[in-house]
Amino acid sequence: MNAANPEPATHWVLTLSCPDRPGIVHAVAGAIATSGGNITESQQFGDPETGLFFMRVQVEGDLTQNELETAIAPVAEQFTMSWLVDRVGRPMRTLVLGSTTEHCVGDLLNRAHSQRLPIDIVGMVSNHTVLRPLAEFYGVGFHHVPVTKATKAEAEARLLELVEELDVELVVLARYMQILSDEVCTALAGRVINIHHSFLPSFKGARPYAQAHDRGVKLIGATAHYATASLDEGPIIEQDVERVTHADDVTELVAIGQDVERRVLARAVRWHAEHRVLLNGHRTVVFR
Amino acid sequence: MNAANPEPATHWVLTLSCPDRPGIVHAVAGAIATSGGNITESQQFGDPETGLFFMRVQVEGDLTQNELETAIAPVAEQFTMSWLVDRVGRPMRTLVLGSTTEHCVGDLLNRAHSQRLPIDIVGMVSNHTVLRPLAEFYGVGFHHVPVTKATKAEAEARLLELVEELDVELVVLARYMQILSDEVCTALAGRVINIHHSFLPSFKGARPYAQAHDRGVKLIGATAHYATASLDEGPIIEQDVERVTHADDVTELVAIGQDVERRVLARAVRWHAEHRVLLNGHRTVVFR
Amino acid sequence: MNAANPEPATHWVLTLSCPDRPGIVHAVAGAIATSGGNITESQQFGDPETGLFFMRVQVEGDLTQNELETAIAPVAEQFTMSWLVDRVGRPMRTLVLGSTTEHCVGDLLNRAHSQRLPIDIVGMVSNHTVLRPLAEFYGVGFHHVPVTKATKAEAEARLLELVEELDVELVVLARYMQILSDEVCTALAGRVINIHHSFLPSFKGARPYAQAHDRGVKLIGATAHYATASLDEGPIIEQDVERVTHADDVTELVAIGQDVERRVLARAVRWHAEHRVLLNGHRTVVFR
Amino acid sequence: MNAANPEPATHWVLTLSCPDRPGIVHAVAGAIATSGGNITESQQFGDPETGLFFMRVQVEGDLTQNELETAIAPVAEQFTMSWLVDRVGRPMRTLVLGSTTEHCVGDLLNRAHSQRLPIDIVGMVSNHTVLRPLAEFYGVGFHHVPVTKATKAEAEARLLELVEELDVELVVLARYMQILSDEVCTALAGRVINIHHSFLPSFKGARPYAQAHDRGVKLIGATAHYATASLDEGPIIEQDVERVTHADDVTELVAIGQDVERRVLARAVRWHAEHRVLLNGHRTVVFR
Repeated sequence: MNAANPEPATHWVLTLSCPDRPGIVHAVAGAIATSGGNITESQQFGDPETGLFFMRVQVEGDLTQNELETAIAPVAEQFTMSWLVDRVGRPMRTLVLGSTTEHCVGDLLNRAHSQRLPIDIVGMVSNHTVLRPLAEFYGVGFHHVPVTKATKAEAEARLLELVEELDVELVVLARYMQILSDEVCTALAGRVINIHHSFLPSFKGARPYAQAHDRGVKLIGATAHYATASLDEGPIIEQDVERVTHADDVTELVAIGQDVERRVLARAVRWHAEHRVLLNGHRTVVFR
Repeated sequence: MNAANPEPATHWVLTLSCPDRPGIVHAVAGAIATSGGNITESQQFGDPETGLFFMRVQVEGDLTQNELETAIAPVAEQFTMSWLVDRVGRPMRTLVLGSTTEHCVGDLLNRAHSQRLPIDIVGMVSNHTVLRPLAEFYGVGFHHVPVTKATKAEAEARLLELVEELDVELVVLARYMQILSDEVCTALAGRVINIHHSFLPSFKGARPYAQAHDRGVKLIGATAHYATASLDEGPIIEQDVERVTHADDVTELVAIGQDVERRVLARAVRWHAEHRVLLNGHRTVVFR
Repeated sequence: MNAANPEPATHWVLTLSCPDRPGIVHAVAGAIATSGGNITESQQFGDPETGLFFMRVQVEGDLTQNELETAIAPVAEQFTMSWLVDRVGRPMRTLVLGSTTEHCVGDLLNRAHSQRLPIDIVGMVSNHTVLRPLAEFYGVGFHHVPVTKATKAEAEARLLELVEELDVELVVLARYMQILSDEVCTALAGRVINIHHSFLPSFKGARPYAQAHDRGVKLIGATAHYATASLDEGPIIEQDVERVTHADDVTELVAIGQDVERRVLARAVRWHAEHRVLLNGHRTVVFR
Repeated sequence: MNAANPEPATHWVLTLSCPDRPGIVHAVAGAIATSGGNITESQQFGDPETGLFFMRVQVEGDLTQNELETAIAPVAEQFTMSWLVDRVGRPMRTLVLGSTTEHCVGDLLNRAHSQRLPIDIVGMVSNHTVLRPLAEFYGVGFHHVPVTKATKAEAEARLLELVEELDVELVVLARYMQILSDEVCTALAGRVINIHHSFLPSFKGARPYAQAHDRGVKLIGATAHYATASLDEGPIIEQDVERVTHADDVTELVAIGQDVERRVLARAVRWHAEHRVLLNGHRTVVFR
């Protein structure tokens, strides 16, 4: 997914997962030491339920990505690892999908622009055109892809085409309001982050703030998760909440909630782009 | 419910609700002024959806409860109010129902004992005996009322008897683990507070921490609500959450959650005892 | 300060403060009832320490601002009140002062633009020019007012001139990085909101994140306060915090802190613009 | 400090710190692998400012403490490590010092008793006697050690004697209200946790809630830190805050703050007892 980095860098990140068994940390640390790298940060987690082991390591040293990969490869094979190496801080090529509300889209653009998020927004897609000026202000190519029942398949084909053309690594549904088909979810599995405007699994589906108001909850929340074929059931990356009162009507819940949404989405995107999120079945491991 | 206070006090609380229409605040303020009282704190809420108006007023002055009630009564009749007057700070007579875990029960006892909660715990009921020494240490009468399928009706009759005998105003289900029958919920409507160990409406029913772990949520919570015949659907009084990670197994979620439970329960009990919680259909108005 | 609203509106807000004594609420409620208004929201606070009484009332009814003011005036005189009436939701004319960082400025512009803040940003002032494109994108007049030791008096004169010309009600120091002189603070007393990038009174002065890092705190915060001649000592409007760890260096504290800053500043500006913040000596009363 | 564990256990914890240089993780992982242990949890931190490296590792395997220590010793010597090995979950022998308020003391006793804290409270010391019944209820030896100006030296001698006699590993100042002398702080360096009732460095010294009220802050907090000769300047372990309003007087701040204090103290004690807190100069590394 991530382009190879031929030039030597000072800082690499390695993530891996594999069936848990003795000796993994020792083998990985050994391979890194052999390659001339020094471990500057390391986190791991062994899940006793799934029997899987997860690790994220940052490595400093005068070595290329290829040299590090060559050192890791035999260990990876020995332990049947899923793994990747990337340069620390490399901006991830990101496609943002929005609709008409600008709070999430604008926040991502602003953060990326001022380098407060390690992503490179290479394009924006929307089924409406109101967000076009915002995209253009930040110098981001805007792609108007209308979606109707009749044109949904066509629209999704265009989306996949853009992912291909723009060499997209990450797709962010920034209150996109359209449900992706199972085919697209599968094609982009683990690469699509959605922000849902409730504290899942509460208030799945449409109009969560109206549901929350009706139930009389005292906190409202938002959930960033990987999009999967099962709507609102994807692996959760991050959640947060804000306090509300009986005096807040649905409009106010929406306003309060929008702040939570963009905060939660920005964190999830950051952690994903920094390779801090690993999939563990239908859950995530987040190495913060 | 609350015993009348014949002696003059310096501080009274008045709560009321009625259909909303112009002139309520003016009429109430007038009646209080006439009685010689001074309003020191006042909160109100008009719900445009239900058309109901809610108010909580604290009144200072050299007047008895009876004098204040006499002043309010005509206004209350005019506006068809549900209302009550009580002395600010009067400890509410409370019956605590527990099972085997002590975190909520112990917290309530400790807070009441050191006057950090405005309640007077007049008895504890449990279907087990492990909490007896704790109750006795705090000088609280312990009533062992075993519950089996066969004896449930009998046990509930004993519970209602105790409520009567001990002149109980509030029943707190402090992780009681037994479901009260519809009859008991109805008989004690608005007077039973339950703590549910999840952020409702997520994870209703049994084993919410196991459900939360399985779903991979990043925050766990607790909910204090009035018990109603619809399990876990009662009006919510207070909720709070705590952050958890992928590394927290169910046992750790339980440990983290217990702190949230007792914090949420203590707040709900405090606000109820201070007449800060008013029922608005299946929701609450909380004047904090 | 606020322009008079001649047209009848449905919703007015009245705020007042005065020495506390019996009968205030009754008198205000009476005046409102007489004018044909109905109280839809009301909050009050009597401070036993300062002996002052504070009130915020929302009034609905088919009456003009002038009619409401006429009804209140005699009561205001009787109780020696500071008071004002404004239309609920009227955008407050706001001048934003920024420097080079865009997180606060951009957030205010974006929120005001999408009507998520009840302010009308009538101009932006900066001693640098990097924020000019952002201002222009949102159609806000940009005024470059360089500040050096030599030109400080001149720059402040220009600032006061702009306040006059643009009929500015509120000045927001959105990480402006310049200290206003005592004269300007006095001239604009109660109308200038500053965001300080620490949890005051911790870490006053320069480089608070470096100070926080050095002290090894586990939470960092931000504080929105009214600017006064005593730097970092003005009345606090709002504060919030975020968790950090030993692994966060100063750069990361800054990044985390920026999110807190803009959240805290946006809340303070909202509450001020909604007339929810009243001055109580060197502290504030915030009717949320 | 910690007694050696001769019996083989399934789970060990190793903590270490040393000057940072390449190869530490590899060497440690190698030693553990050689000893037959498997790393189940591992956290590390290299501080670029102090040049120090910190690590906490949990090791599973059929090996004794002695076997693990023997494997680590040569590596520890090679890298000039400060290090220790302990059994995961071993309750730490703890002496609690209290005064007259029971919220922190009672919370620690209750948590330790119901095994919600990995400590064994081997005694309680107080300069008053009001907490004696609480200690006795939980079966904890109570030592009344009055402190006056004249007897302070004597009282501290008695304290150090008790630490010796009871084989105390950790001393907790649970709102003890007495300042330990420099000599005691030095003698027990890194083994005394104090809870300060403010969000340090705000409101050092006496009556922090009164100071907080006077400053008009919107959040109050508590800080758990290691006691050092410089009062309120010791390395911070944990902090948290709670929201307050203008309507909360000092008494209410105290009540709200007490909940924060006991929550913060319990976390700090847990993390210390689990060997999750390492000293890094005047700051801490907390591996949560």
